[in-house]
Amino acid sequence: MAGNLESPEARQAALREVRRMLGRQAYLAQLAQQQDPQHRALVEQLAEKQEATALSMLLSRLHAADIADILEGLPFDERRRVWNVVCAERGGAVLLEASEAVRGWLVGEVAADELAQVLAQLDAEDLAWIAEDLPREALDARLAQLSSSEQQWVASALGYDEDSVGILMTREYTAAAAGSTVADLVARLQHDGRLPGQTDAIFVVDGRGVLQGRIALEKLLLVAPATALADILQQDIVSFRPDDEAQEAVNAFERYDLVSAPVVNHRRQLVGRLTVEAVMEWMHESSHEDLLGSAGLAGEEDLYAPVRESARNRAYWLAVNLCTAFIASRVIGFFETTIAQLVALATLMPIVASIGGNTGNQTTALVIRALALEQVRNDNLGVVYRKEIAVALLNGLSLGLVVALFALLLYHDWHLALTIGLAMVVCLFFAAIVGVSVPLLLKRFDRDPALGSSTLVTAFTDSLGFFVFLGLATLLLV
Amino acid sequence: MAGNLESPEARQAALREVRRMLGRQAYLAQLAQQQDPQHRALVEQLAEKQEATALSMLLSRLHAADIADILEGLPFDERRRVWNVVCAERGGAVLLEASEAVRGWLVGEVAADELAQVLAQLDAEDLAWIAEDLPREALDARLAQLSSSEQQWVASALGYDEDSVGILMTREYTAAAAGSTVADLVARLQHDGRLPGQTDAIFVVDGRGVLQGRIALEKLLLVAPATALADILQQDIVSFRPDDEAQEAVNAFERYDLVSAPVVNHRRQLVGRLTVEAVMEWMHESSHEDLLGSAGLAGEEDLYAPVRESARNRAYWLAVNLCTAFIASRVIGFFETTIAQLVALATLMPIVASIGGNTGNQTTALVIRALALEQVRNDNLGVVYRKEIAVALLNGLSLGLVVALFALLLYHDWHLALTIGLAMVVCLFFAAIVGVSVPLLLKRFDRDPALGSSTLVTAFTDSLGFFVFLGLATLLLV
Repeated sequence: MAGNLESPEARQAALREVRRMLGRQAYLAQLAQQQDPQHRALVEQLAEKQEATALSMLLSRLHAADIADILEGLPFDERRRVWNVVCAERGGAVLLEASEAVRGWLVGEVAADELAQVLAQLDAEDLAWIAEDLPREALDARLAQLSSSEQQWVASALGYDEDSVGILMTREYTAAAAGSTVADLVARLQHDGRLPGQTDAIFVVDGRGVLQGRIALEKLLLVAPATALADILQQDIVSFRPDDEAQEAVNAFERYDLVSAPVVNHRRQLVGRLTVEAVMEWMHESSHEDLLGSAGLAGEEDLYAPVRESARNRAYWLAVNLCTAFIASRVIGFFETTIAQLVALATLMPIVASIGGNTGNQTTALVIRALALEQVRNDNLGVVYRKEIAVALLNGLSLGLVVALFALLLYHDWHLALTIGLAMVVCLFFAAIVGVSVPLLLKRFDRDPALGSSTLVTAFTDSLGFFVFLGLATLLLV
Repeated sequence: MAGNLESPEARQAALREVRRMLGRQAYLAQLAQQQDPQHRALVEQLAEKQEATALSMLLSRLHAADIADILEGLPFDERRRVWNVVCAERGGAVLLEASEAVRGWLVGEVAADELAQVLAQLDAEDLAWIAEDLPREALDARLAQLSSSEQQWVASALGYDEDSVGILMTREYTAAAAGSTVADLVARLQHDGRLPGQTDAIFVVDGRGVLQGRIALEKLLLVAPATALADILQQDIVSFRPDDEAQEAVNAFERYDLVSAPVVNHRRQLVGRLTVEAVMEWMHESSHEDLLGSAGLAGEEDLYAPVRESARNRAYWLAVNLCTAFIASRVIGFFETTIAQLVALATLMPIVASIGGNTGNQTTALVIRALALEQVRNDNLGVVYRKEIAVALLNGLSLGLVVALFALLLYHDWHLALTIGLAMVVCLFFAAIVGVSVPLLLKRFDRDPALGSSTLVTAFTDSLGFFVFLGLATLLLV
């Protein structure tokens, strides 16, 4: 087994070593430039060979996931040189472990025949996992080399939703018939010589492949060999359907401390296995997606991606935000005559909008969490709305008082102070309603409430804050 | 084993069933009110007993995690009644599985002797896990009942950082001496009768308890009984130290697909075991914390918490936000005479601030992700700054152009249009710098960059946007 770089320090050290080697190589290349033409080719060849050997020795000790990581930390030219060393033997594994950003770069960078060579290292399951990042032709060419059952597997996996159990499950599992004994099963396992990764249990099925239950691996060690499997069968177990949402699987794995679980079709026939590895991978990716998405980024971004590509990645939500900013600006524009009469309004109005946005987003975050934990139901929606409104009103009163004092201190105008205090209460009232409604609506339309909620809520509360404050000012002050 | 509610539908159904029972109980209580006093007590008693029996039957089929979940979905009075049914036998398990919010409620709700009874169901490890949510006296009283080695364990666990491996590790693991054979080990395991949860490997230690390696459980099934453990020992394995950061462990578990890993002290002596269960639990909690924290909430919140308590949970960040809003407001106040001369400035200024905030937060999200993946190092900080500034300038030019056109269309003023276009470019330039710097600084001061980054960045970009736009306008327009 290849060595693991367990600590960040060890990974940093390996990365430094790789960069040092690449640096020495650059120096040798420079040296070669100073030679006369006949010698230059020789020195270059020598240097290249030396680098490849040294790098290859270092990289062979590393896990593919670590190599993928090192690639992500390197500028493009150095990345290419490291890739050249690993691609022939472990390119497939590295491609599989790479983040979406690096995978995209690799697929775009390597020639068609090199990509074919790398994909040849991957099996049906690997291909299904990264299919959407591959060029259609390259994928099809590789699929044509697979057996028809493997092709079917890929086709069915690609038919499932991106965030479903079907796309996460593996076809590698060990199943046994309920009729046999522990000795039979162990003999069979010994004959196979190995178990699929993260196997903590053997699944037991009947003659038609219908799931009967599971037997923990440790049971096979602990009971007498003559024991019938039926006697140690655990029947009341967690199973999934391919079209279950991945989030449900995450919740169940966390709740019941699972390592692996069977996936069954509508007739309860065993069709696959879900492992904690795949569940964690999905959790990890989806939390990054949520982080990036809630800040208004379309996707993962390569640290060394060209500026233009990065700018494009951010343009979508910036454009959305620009539209909402234009709307907010027009709301203010509607009250220009009021502002012209009392410039203090322009100074104070961002306070109302800002606190409104903050309040709305607090509510939204709580609702997103409650939705993920399935705590919000139709029968307690009223409770959620009532509570959020009450909290907003309470905070509106106290913050409104502070803001009113602030305004009074600055402008010595009782009416202005009262107006902004009142505006705070009204604005926070609506912010709470918007904060609950936006994630609920996104969820109802089958969108991820974590993505875009914040932008939408802020868009509402900005315009709302300006409208409420300036509207009240127009009514009460001028 | 208690049954699991694998699907959300099944959980919802159980919850409905619980509520239906509680509803019937309410009806019976009402009925009792209509009886004459002698009968009332009898009817009440009968109804109570009936409810307790029916509820107890239903709940006995459920996993403690599901009961904790059902509790969280119930209003306080119904929650109390469900708790009364489970507390005597499974109160400890439910307390352990409950979210922080529900645990806080339970601890506050139950009487001291009831709490003592529930804590008596928990072992040293469970106590360490929830210690910070327990009243000091209750914890101490329970600790006094434990053996001194267990007390030591709790004390050492409580000595570790909240987000460290030490607090997540379990003392339940199976270790063997390298000198023995597979047959010896299996005989010992059979004698013990069971293995700790999520055991995928036996750890091998030498006479002084120093970790030598691991043997996968499946190996014990697959090799001949006479095999020496030393021959199947896997030496090059991932291990942790108690003071490693939990985030490192998450990365390693995900990277190397681990189910469990040994924890060793500075002399490489085995001191504990980290399981994927604990890692997932931490991941789950920390992603919720990040979600809530980035929206400006101090902690988890019970859906049914009193309004005043919830308002307090949100007050801290609202107060911070209020201060930054006051500062932004004073920045605008500084330019009041300029605005008085050209009211259009008040209408347009939120656009610059809003886009600046969005740009800064995009950059911050990318840097937070890169920090979590350890992609940002001292030697490529320059790359990150340069790239983010370049992207911001590119987007600043294109968005600046659009905003300038918008201003021109509305106010037919070339100078105003140029000013806002220029302001966009300048503001986005600084937003990129702030967006990179804030999470880096938080990280340098050992704070979680995901918490508060967004509020701080927005605070900067708001004031910055107003200052740059109004400042340029003062210089160029009036």
